[in-house]
Amino acid sequence: MAEHDAVEVILAKRDGGELSDSQIDWMIAAYTQGVVAEEQMSALNMAILLNGMSRREIARWTAAMIASGERMSFDSLDRPTADKHSTGGVGDKITLPLAPLVAACGVAVPQLSGRGLGHTGGTLDKLESIPGWRASLSNEEMLAQLGSVGAVICAAGEGLAPADRKLYALRDVTGTVESIPLIASSIMSKKIAEGTGALVLDVKVGAGAFMKTLDSAQELARTMVDLGTDAGVNTVALVTDMATPLGLTAGNAIEVTESVEVLAGGGPADVVELTVALAREMLTAAGVSGPDPADVLASGKAMDAWRAMISAQGGDPSAPLPVARETHVVTAPTSGVLTRLDAMAVGLAAWRLGAGRERKEDAVQAGAGVTWHARPGDSVTAGAPLFTLHTDTPERFDRALAALEGGYEIGDGAAYEATPLILDRIS
Amino acid sequence: MAEHDAVEVILAKRDGGELSDSQIDWMIAAYTQGVVAEEQMSALNMAILLNGMSRREIARWTAAMIASGERMSFDSLDRPTADKHSTGGVGDKITLPLAPLVAACGVAVPQLSGRGLGHTGGTLDKLESIPGWRASLSNEEMLAQLGSVGAVICAAGEGLAPADRKLYALRDVTGTVESIPLIASSIMSKKIAEGTGALVLDVKVGAGAFMKTLDSAQELARTMVDLGTDAGVNTVALVTDMATPLGLTAGNAIEVTESVEVLAGGGPADVVELTVALAREMLTAAGVSGPDPADVLASGKAMDAWRAMISAQGGDPSAPLPVARETHVVTAPTSGVLTRLDAMAVGLAAWRLGAGRERKEDAVQAGAGVTWHARPGDSVTAGAPLFTLHTDTPERFDRALAALEGGYEIGDGAAYEATPLILDRIS
Repeated sequence: MAEHDAVEVILAKRDGGELSDSQIDWMIAAYTQGVVAEEQMSALNMAILLNGMSRREIARWTAAMIASGERMSFDSLDRPTADKHSTGGVGDKITLPLAPLVAACGVAVPQLSGRGLGHTGGTLDKLESIPGWRASLSNEEMLAQLGSVGAVICAAGEGLAPADRKLYALRDVTGTVESIPLIASSIMSKKIAEGTGALVLDVKVGAGAFMKTLDSAQELARTMVDLGTDAGVNTVALVTDMATPLGLTAGNAIEVTESVEVLAGGGPADVVELTVALAREMLTAAGVSGPDPADVLASGKAMDAWRAMISAQGGDPSAPLPVARETHVVTAPTSGVLTRLDAMAVGLAAWRLGAGRERKEDAVQAGAGVTWHARPGDSVTAGAPLFTLHTDTPERFDRALAALEGGYEIGDGAAYEATPLILDRIS
Repeated sequence: MAEHDAVEVILAKRDGGELSDSQIDWMIAAYTQGVVAEEQMSALNMAILLNGMSRREIARWTAAMIASGERMSFDSLDRPTADKHSTGGVGDKITLPLAPLVAACGVAVPQLSGRGLGHTGGTLDKLESIPGWRASLSNEEMLAQLGSVGAVICAAGEGLAPADRKLYALRDVTGTVESIPLIASSIMSKKIAEGTGALVLDVKVGAGAFMKTLDSAQELARTMVDLGTDAGVNTVALVTDMATPLGLTAGNAIEVTESVEVLAGGGPADVVELTVALAREMLTAAGVSGPDPADVLASGKAMDAWRAMISAQGGDPSAPLPVARETHVVTAPTSGVLTRLDAMAVGLAAWRLGAGRERKEDAVQAGAGVTWHARPGDSVTAGAPLFTLHTDTPERFDRALAALEGGYEIGDGAAYEATPLILDRIS
């Protein structure tokens, strides 16, 4: 590999230039090996955030991160594979009903997931509220479960894109998270290294998402679709609303309960709509023109796949889920129509109740979170419950209530117009 | 002190905002104490470099760096004090004749200097070629020498602006040196903490300087003059040419020799001109309307002060200076007029011959450097010596010669126009 110098690479990006393939390869490899210091990569990250990267640079940066670790392969499976990634939102439990649903439609789902940080929840945190369920699988266990059950949701192994793991921890403490090239390459390096054949991205936009504007969400979606396509992964993205939280719950165990309702044929309409829409995209991207996911959901086969998937990872799908020790009910101050429910306010409240963590090493409360009893457009009655707050540590109620203040509006509903859930599709 | 968070401060500057006084105070103090990590300060530095700082932010940043360490005071002296700082150039030995000249005019000169890094020389490296001379003095020794001799040139103590020392080392390896707010605050924090009553800045512009354009040099000069004035230091700046190197030598011992020639009433005209101009500015800034420095230079009193200053720091002003073991002469390829001599080319050649260092821990060669036998505007004769290269390690000649290639031009001189040495004055 050509020899470069960290300062030379930093200056090139700082002064608005494009990094060469050789500079990118050297920088990522040298950083992974500890030759480039954290403070040097941090300066480069800030220069990338402020000066951007070309499509070629992002693709090479992603490839270099993939090359820093192992690549998995599901070629030995008898089925096509499809994975889904959400950029993170509030009440976003979609992965839970989606993975078994798609598996029940004949496409294997190797879903590597993460834990929550900040106000957005983590899929692994939610599943860990199921007694006995474990998130860590070896590559062999993962492959075996994909063959037998057809779906697996587990933590990414240490060997996958180690450069990204190091870089993500650095970005988190240096104010360099919100960069489209860095977000896109971080997500896609893991998904490409994982070896999925098809990938459907759910890019969130709105108050409760990283991307606050439709333009920026579309740019992130386009960047990731380009990266996946260039790497031979059949990739498509839906841009979906995260101004309002999904479903009626944000937390851990309470989101599992809502997911099981969806698998049982019930559940909130928006969760069902997004689950079915993403399942159809995953089947299409995997090249399967099989049964309609809505029918499979109704047939109970998705619920069978869920139970098998949970059991295979040590969980008891019939065990009662943990319940928070304390609850606090917020009632509607007036009667009318709920015209706004702010995803960030709800996410912050759930986080402060103990559903999320402040630092990576913190534990989460399985029972903590927020339930809301109306969605925008629903009628509410003065004095009737609007929110239920759940926590094991009641001293947290005050700060959670403060987060909800100003986070919703009740009006006469005359001017209310529902926002579509799915805002764009990029392929 | 108000509590802040490194990421909060980074995000504020990253997103184009102004940092509050409290954010700046906290960031500098926490960084000095090791609470803010190197990679966090590095990201902030890059954001400052790319997004800039207001006059208020720069002043507060400088004040916070001063507050990180001790402040010196020369109030007990019976004379006013004046210091001079050059932003660094090639052949810039001005401090050597200037400090004793100003002392001989009745103003004490507490000159804290640095070592060379890269292609620009360091005042301490030059003086260390004098047998016995030592750069490190305690604050008490410095004050005593200012009282007895009136001039001292020494290394800044560890206690002065420790935040700046840490920050400078970080900027050096993270591509964040070339930022006017960071350069200005670095220089001025040390000069203000040092306690000088008046300060004259020599801001270099041109090929051999950090600042390549007159605009950027003027901006840096204006920023530093504002900082000094706001802190109660009577500050003035000259913006001077560094397209062409100063005098006829770039190195260590060979620049001392040239400086002694100036003190003896001879020496190159440009070195004399700048020395006298800066001395006049220092006297005026110190509020002294004493003798004219040109007369004092001619009287021999500046030479007396030089000898006293060198002796006081253990040096022998009469000892022969080290001479390089090997020399190589470059002759003029044609006859004509030297129309251009590039400061960067000469600086690089001297550096490569061993006059400068590549890493902080490297030693320099006392005898190494470049002598040029003509200045722009002078006639040269084909075959006559144009440059003499000096080094102890002749294997360095090749790379030095490569640096000089294209670094000068000989023409018929018809279109030659001399550039003024002093380009602007900012007060």
